[in-house]
Amino acid sequence: MSLDAVLSKIDTDLPAATDRLMALLRIPSISTDPAYKADCDRAADWLVADLNSLGIKTEKRATPGHPMVVGHLDGPGPHLLFYGHYDVQPVDPLELWDNDPFDPRIEETPKGEVIRGRGSSDDKGQLMTFIEACRAWKAVHGTLPCKLTFFLEGEEESGSPSLVPFMKENAEELTSDLALICDTGLFESKTPAIVTMLRGLLGEELTITGPRIDLHSGMYGGVAINPVRVLSRIIAALHDDQGRITVPGFYDGVPELPDEIEAQWQGLAFDHSAFLGDVGLSHPAGEQDRTPLEMIWSRPTCEVNGIWGGYTGDGFKTVLPSEAHAKISFRLVGTQDPLKIRESFRAMVREMLPEDCEVSFQSHGAGAASVTETSDPSFEAARQALSDEWQVPAAYVGCGGSIPIAGHFQNILGTTPMLIGFGKDDDALHSPNEKYDMESFHKGIRSWARVLAALT
Amino acid sequence: MSLDAVLSKIDTDLPAATDRLMALLRIPSISTDPAYKADCDRAADWLVADLNSLGIKTEKRATPGHPMVVGHLDGPGPHLLFYGHYDVQPVDPLELWDNDPFDPRIEETPKGEVIRGRGSSDDKGQLMTFIEACRAWKAVHGTLPCKLTFFLEGEEESGSPSLVPFMKENAEELTSDLALICDTGLFESKTPAIVTMLRGLLGEELTITGPRIDLHSGMYGGVAINPVRVLSRIIAALHDDQGRITVPGFYDGVPELPDEIEAQWQGLAFDHSAFLGDVGLSHPAGEQDRTPLEMIWSRPTCEVNGIWGGYTGDGFKTVLPSEAHAKISFRLVGTQDPLKIRESFRAMVREMLPEDCEVSFQSHGAGAASVTETSDPSFEAARQALSDEWQVPAAYVGCGGSIPIAGHFQNILGTTPMLIGFGKDDDALHSPNEKYDMESFHKGIRSWARVLAALT
Repeated sequence: MSLDAVLSKIDTDLPAATDRLMALLRIPSISTDPAYKADCDRAADWLVADLNSLGIKTEKRATPGHPMVVGHLDGPGPHLLFYGHYDVQPVDPLELWDNDPFDPRIEETPKGEVIRGRGSSDDKGQLMTFIEACRAWKAVHGTLPCKLTFFLEGEEESGSPSLVPFMKENAEELTSDLALICDTGLFESKTPAIVTMLRGLLGEELTITGPRIDLHSGMYGGVAINPVRVLSRIIAALHDDQGRITVPGFYDGVPELPDEIEAQWQGLAFDHSAFLGDVGLSHPAGEQDRTPLEMIWSRPTCEVNGIWGGYTGDGFKTVLPSEAHAKISFRLVGTQDPLKIRESFRAMVREMLPEDCEVSFQSHGAGAASVTETSDPSFEAARQALSDEWQVPAAYVGCGGSIPIAGHFQNILGTTPMLIGFGKDDDALHSPNEKYDMESFHKGIRSWARVLAALT
Repeated sequence: MSLDAVLSKIDTDLPAATDRLMALLRIPSISTDPAYKADCDRAADWLVADLNSLGIKTEKRATPGHPMVVGHLDGPGPHLLFYGHYDVQPVDPLELWDNDPFDPRIEETPKGEVIRGRGSSDDKGQLMTFIEACRAWKAVHGTLPCKLTFFLEGEEESGSPSLVPFMKENAEELTSDLALICDTGLFESKTPAIVTMLRGLLGEELTITGPRIDLHSGMYGGVAINPVRVLSRIIAALHDDQGRITVPGFYDGVPELPDEIEAQWQGLAFDHSAFLGDVGLSHPAGEQDRTPLEMIWSRPTCEVNGIWGGYTGDGFKTVLPSEAHAKISFRLVGTQDPLKIRESFRAMVREMLPEDCEVSFQSHGAGAASVTETSDPSFEAARQALSDEWQVPAAYVGCGGSIPIAGHFQNILGTTPMLIGFGKDDDALHSPNEKYDMESFHKGIRSWARVLAALT
């Protein structure tokens, strides 16, 4: 059977596929830092060349930010689009990496072989699973099984500022029957999963200013307002003692979990002790009356992603700082309105400001949550294909992360998104020593070959 | 009269004296940063050479940290010791300096000529006022008027870790009749002042650890404890709504202001609007039932000098940080016990820690407050000398800053400290664009010549 030949080709080609991924990982395409602009460009060029080598007509398309990579291959129906992103997170704190984040390596670990390096899991390793599946298919059959569009972006880690305008301007070109997205994980690192609930994301940066200049805390301490103390009070006030978020109107549009979903999730027997234990924790923080799985899949959150102010170097400096800064993000669910919450958050901060303090805000994106309908038969077909590969029944699950692109496919293009990915909980996404298991890479490629066969 | 000749020599020698100060300012002797260790050494060498050129037998004396500069000159009584420090504060944020902090320059400003550069006021400019007064005296009289000891340290800005052991080991050599210390300012930038009340300082750095590694806030947000939120809650809880510090037992040993001091301070007609207005503020923060002058001279404080955690670079990174850090200092008064307060503060922090969080502390010094008796007739003599130079009655004042050396002279050597300095409120000590007014430098040198004459 033709699928078996493709799977077999994937197995024998794995070392070469790994080498190709390593080459892509060596390009430090950090999208949030302007110093890496040329590297983002280089990663796009690498993908353009690779896709063209598969006979997919691919171009780098300019945006006000980093370029899009768009490729097309004509063929019989259905028309599938594949989305991934070639940009990666910054690497600091660099000193916590055991090796250069952009000098990837294969490591033997007690849990098996891993590919270590920034972007190995998020998202270069994942996007290459689909490309490698296509490569093997082409090698065996001389062609691909259906009409395909590739749509790879380079700004996912910086809030995708160019994405919506680009999708709107090129709506006809990017419209397909189904959008495959590879940027999610296995459930509990072992069960293949199609993500059907995604949280939204609102990112806010605030700067609180007090004195005009940094002051000597001996001369001014006590009598001059300290913006770090003001910021701390604001952050402390964002949650109540029960772990609920206090921004007025925040819970408008947060649905209670439907009974059947609750039952399905209970059936998953999520092991929160292992989930937390992996990262050195033992107690679920957060809302007191919710289960951990609810909290990460279906409840909204507010987290401080960064804070800084005053003297942060070695030793001590008795400064009373002029400014204090924080980066704060909200994960949104249901029909929570990111723009309303942004206004309400900013109003709350302004109201808490004491005299002589000012605040300025910078927006880092505002995307609503999305829920995918799974009634289309392609979902059951894909789920069966994943179950066949992993020898475990695949699940429809929620996801704590935010992949606004899923909502954009639905809302801008009217295309149903299907989110399938092979990351594991201990991949250290966005952290030092990020890795992607060789198992994820290998079985990920095989999974896509099976999904392609099932959908075409 | 001999004093007039000295004052006249000071006037004509001012340009050369300024050049000498500029040479010392060019040495980046930042004591808190190990990268500048050799520069601290170089500043000490420069002072050793300069004092030896005045006939004062001076040596660099090793300590576990930066060296002490100690010089002696025999002569008739009384025996005066002079203390200053040659180390300076770090310079960040460097981007807020208009010029290289270690390329000092003379600038014309609307308020007169200033010497701009790190250390110009704190404390190189100030310590050179005394040395230049001695140089002029020597030039006119061929000798100095009394027995003198110079004691200059290089660790004042990093909590003086070697000072107490050095004073104890060399107690006999460093004992004198009176210790002159030049590290304070004019009252309201115009009234010469002898500081008789100094606050103590307790410096603490804390690191709160939650998850073992930085996490993805989408995957773990809400359910994993966030150490930045924990730290913010702790900082917010350090003051109550009235601005009082909540560390248990903190106010033990804080005296109410004696009536006569309160009356004298009211007589000073302190203009807190101008004091705050200079730095862009208009409202006294802090304890609601205290005057601003009380708050900065005679009340204890707790300030956050620095805070950091998570992603603090450009753009956005949805990280849930593993660690959060703060540098916190307490100014102490009366008989507050810094060691007891340290224990109480640490216990309070530990008590506020939620499950799964740990805290570690690093000490950055713990010195008690000091109050000087002014009954010795040398105080009135010095006060008269200062009044003569500035043509304004000099005052006995408090000081918000902490100069633990004053207490050490009293407690370790039994020597009364006399704190006279010429800094102004807008000198930007510890801040970008630090400066010292040419008026402070010139009249400061003249002031010391008058004080030398008055005390001998």
